Amino acid sequence: MNGTIDLNADLGEGFGRWHLTDDDALLASVTSANVACGFHAGDPVTMRRVCAGAAEHGVRVGAQVSYRDLAGFGRRAMDVPADELAAEVAYQIGALDLFARAAGTRVAYVKPHGALYHRTAHDPEQAAAVVAGVRLAGTPLPLLGPPGSALHAAAEAAELPVVVEAFADRGYRADGTLVPRGEPGAVLTGTDEVLARSVGLARDGRVTAVDGTEVRVRARSLCLHGDTPGAVELARRVREELVAAGVTVGAFA
Amino acid sequence: MNGTIDLNADLGEGFGRWHLTDDDALLASVTSANVACGFHAGDPVTMRRVCAGAAEHGVRVGAQVSYRDLAGFGRRAMDVPADELAAEVAYQIGALDLFARAAGTRVAYVKPHGALYHRTAHDPEQAAAVVAGVRLAGTPLPLLGPPGSALHAAAEAAELPVVVEAFADRGYRADGTLVPRGEPGAVLTGTDEVLARSVGLARDGRVTAVDGTEVRVRARSLCLHGDTPGAVELARRVREELVAAGVTVGAFA
Amino acid sequence: MNGTIDLNADLGEGFGRWHLTDDDALLASVTSANVACGFHAGDPVTMRRVCAGAAEHGVRVGAQVSYRDLAGFGRRAMDVPADELAAEVAYQIGALDLFARAAGTRVAYVKPHGALYHRTAHDPEQAAAVVAGVRLAGTPLPLLGPPGSALHAAAEAAELPVVVEAFADRGYRADGTLVPRGEPGAVLTGTDEVLARSVGLARDGRVTAVDGTEVRVRARSLCLHGDTPGAVELARRVREELVAAGVTVGAFA
Amino acid sequence: MNGTIDLNADLGEGFGRWHLTDDDALLASVTSANVACGFHAGDPVTMRRVCAGAAEHGVRVGAQVSYRDLAGFGRRAMDVPADELAAEVAYQIGALDLFARAAGTRVAYVKPHGALYHRTAHDPEQAAAVVAGVRLAGTPLPLLGPPGSALHAAAEAAELPVVVEAFADRGYRADGTLVPRGEPGAVLTGTDEVLARSVGLARDGRVTAVDGTEVRVRARSLCLHGDTPGAVELARRVREELVAAGVTVGAFA
Repeated sequence: MNGTIDLNADLGEGFGRWHLTDDDALLASVTSANVACGFHAGDPVTMRRVCAGAAEHGVRVGAQVSYRDLAGFGRRAMDVPADELAAEVAYQIGALDLFARAAGTRVAYVKPHGALYHRTAHDPEQAAAVVAGVRLAGTPLPLLGPPGSALHAAAEAAELPVVVEAFADRGYRADGTLVPRGEPGAVLTGTDEVLARSVGLARDGRVTAVDGTEVRVRARSLCLHGDTPGAVELARRVREELVAAGVTVGAFA
Repeated sequence: MNGTIDLNADLGEGFGRWHLTDDDALLASVTSANVACGFHAGDPVTMRRVCAGAAEHGVRVGAQVSYRDLAGFGRRAMDVPADELAAEVAYQIGALDLFARAAGTRVAYVKPHGALYHRTAHDPEQAAAVVAGVRLAGTPLPLLGPPGSALHAAAEAAELPVVVEAFADRGYRADGTLVPRGEPGAVLTGTDEVLARSVGLARDGRVTAVDGTEVRVRARSLCLHGDTPGAVELARRVREELVAAGVTVGAFA
Repeated sequence: MNGTIDLNADLGEGFGRWHLTDDDALLASVTSANVACGFHAGDPVTMRRVCAGAAEHGVRVGAQVSYRDLAGFGRRAMDVPADELAAEVAYQIGALDLFARAAGTRVAYVKPHGALYHRTAHDPEQAAAVVAGVRLAGTPLPLLGPPGSALHAAAEAAELPVVVEAFADRGYRADGTLVPRGEPGAVLTGTDEVLARSVGLARDGRVTAVDGTEVRVRARSLCLHGDTPGAVELARRVREELVAAGVTVGAFA
Repeated sequence: MNGTIDLNADLGEGFGRWHLTDDDALLASVTSANVACGFHAGDPVTMRRVCAGAAEHGVRVGAQVSYRDLAGFGRRAMDVPADELAAEVAYQIGALDLFARAAGTRVAYVKPHGALYHRTAHDPEQAAAVVAGVRLAGTPLPLLGPPGSALHAAAEAAELPVVVEAFADRGYRADGTLVPRGEPGAVLTGTDEVLARSVGLARDGRVTAVDGTEVRVRARSLCLHGDTPGAVELARRVREELVAAGVTVGAFA
């Protein structure tokens, strides 16, 4: 049983004139904000505003680091050499951390975005490069990611903390991995399903896989999607349901 | 008489495959490195490397902040709204500061680049925006700039220190201002001229204007250009000549 | 009296993951599409799709050229040297024209966007640079802009056609110029007002200024805004109202 | 025996303030210029200038298309979805073609750059996407690439012409493929070696592999590197040596 759960979502994913996430509304529900740092999304004005909002709501600020790919929203995997990737990750953390400090808080964790998230789940070289970039920050920032990832292995090898996350709106297979997007059952669309899944994951550490198997999934954080229609309302409902189920909603230590 | 002079130059002004400044060689002569932060030049790998080199040589790291304009090398003035400009400046400082910290030092001052340098010399609104961005950094970073600039006025209004610089290779008018580029005498090209000018500025606080007048120019730092042919050799000669003239070459406090 | 009016709107103003304009819906109402070309907005996939849609709907394709400023959505005036501005304009037209040709049509006119629109309304140097860029395209493309603009003067000096546009949702002053944004009456918000203004401009060449004066405003095209809430419905209503009032809605020759 | 050989090199690979290739000098030796189109290098002013120079020298203009990656100089492979890659390729061709037309010529062929060159040598999906992008240009542009590449297979499937190139300064293996960079013999550094290799390839269609085997390599074009020290002089010498050996140096049909 898991008494406390963190709720994380991607915030600040607009760029200049373009907006994607309702940052202010989401800050009322999440406990950790994965803030875009300018490489796939996130302009300086937005970064500053989201950090200020997060500090006000007592929400933890995380650096949502990405490949440098505004045109592809960071969703296109790139073969970035290790030294470049490390420095690009560090650059993003440093930029965000200034805004976090100015708001009276600090960057408290790092979560890769999009293609970098998926790539570092299984690519040891890029995972090590991301971790090397994080280490340049000088404080032992936790890496948020899926269980059993190359990223977490690299973080542990570098003596950085890891935080495992699960997904409130994704289907799981019997082995505890996600149903790949595009396959049946990959994404839960019904509100009730998402709420039940959230409680199951947070309170019981359990999820019913697409084949009916009960699977143990131990996660310290639950990822909510911020850029879907109804995201704000769903985040609010998830939080309420968790509290009603006796789960403490709070950022990881 | 001015007993100590700082030597500053722009460093790290390449981007990815492109190189402009011989950073390692210049670090042997200057005492302050204006490091490009990625908006007009300066990629993360270079920023990291220059910070490490600066720390090794005991050279002070400054954030050379710019408009967001890689295509124009930051030389095209832009009407950036104050809140955007402040946040863009802060973003650059934060990114560089991470690399400076990782190298065991810190961003120690800020110098606007190119069009932003010229604009903030006389535009109070953009000057105030740059200063507001610098203040977000949380430490009272000095602003390096020309005497009598709007930037310095804004910095002083915000209780930030200012450091006045002069130019070793530029012509001066009788009123102490620079001969505009394009006019006769704007740029000194002879090595001996530059050396004499450097000593005159640093030791005596004096310069001979284009009309022959002797002008007082009090500057705490001398700007050398790093991207011209012979820049490295000239910087070395300037430093030697200053030392030979009894001037202490050292970073400003 | 003006028997035929063109309706133009900005289309394709998203970028990658971000969307701003409901391009498909707007194509059902406008006769000229100002397509973003990648410098302030507009990615290649979107440009291709909008050109295909425009060709299908018989809508004319125009190049909505801009300063290179994705972060500022082209709304920040830039002091771009003439040769750079000309080449940047030409680059955008060339890229769009390939997609227009692939869709069976051609770029048929050019309209500067945002800060470049405003700057070239009164800055003869930048106006001439834009025109020089357009001339590189090799065909005498008309320049769409406000009456009496420096852009139109430059176009005429270069023997390029000009097309004057008026605004369906903007307030006018007694001298026929727009009420500046931020001042009372600058923007019409009521649907009935906008419809009446559209008919007045298109059928009668007349508009009631904010001080009550009746002003003659002769325009060959009417600009509709595509990125405001209700833009699609408003565009549809404007077109219907014009047709009902006996105005022929059609692209300029 | 091969009576006519084309000499191609990458040109226009600067960006704004940064320069890499001595375009004017190289235009005196090559017969085909692979012009950077703005995605890995190449700003509009440079594109315009190189096209004008190429037209003046009777040099053929090719579009050197790339991933969108200025920071990585297009050397980082990217998993770009097919529709995006096709549109990005078309965008680059369109932009360059305007400058080529303005100079009185046309884009006459396409050559992928860097990581896209290597990726499309063996990745059928990206190869097909590049070819789909080229087909949007409306004229059957030849694809320049290595023999036996996926790119050439895709081009032939789409009924586009292919042109095989060989490398004047690279080592070959007994199977006719290049010695991978980093391995012994990958790059020829001696001028005499390069000259001999050029004549062998162009006149005899033969090359001596690293293991001493004589290999047949039939190529219609010879690639020279433009961004190495001594590139201009080497290109001049290669051309002279070919002419002296009775080879006609001329662009492919």
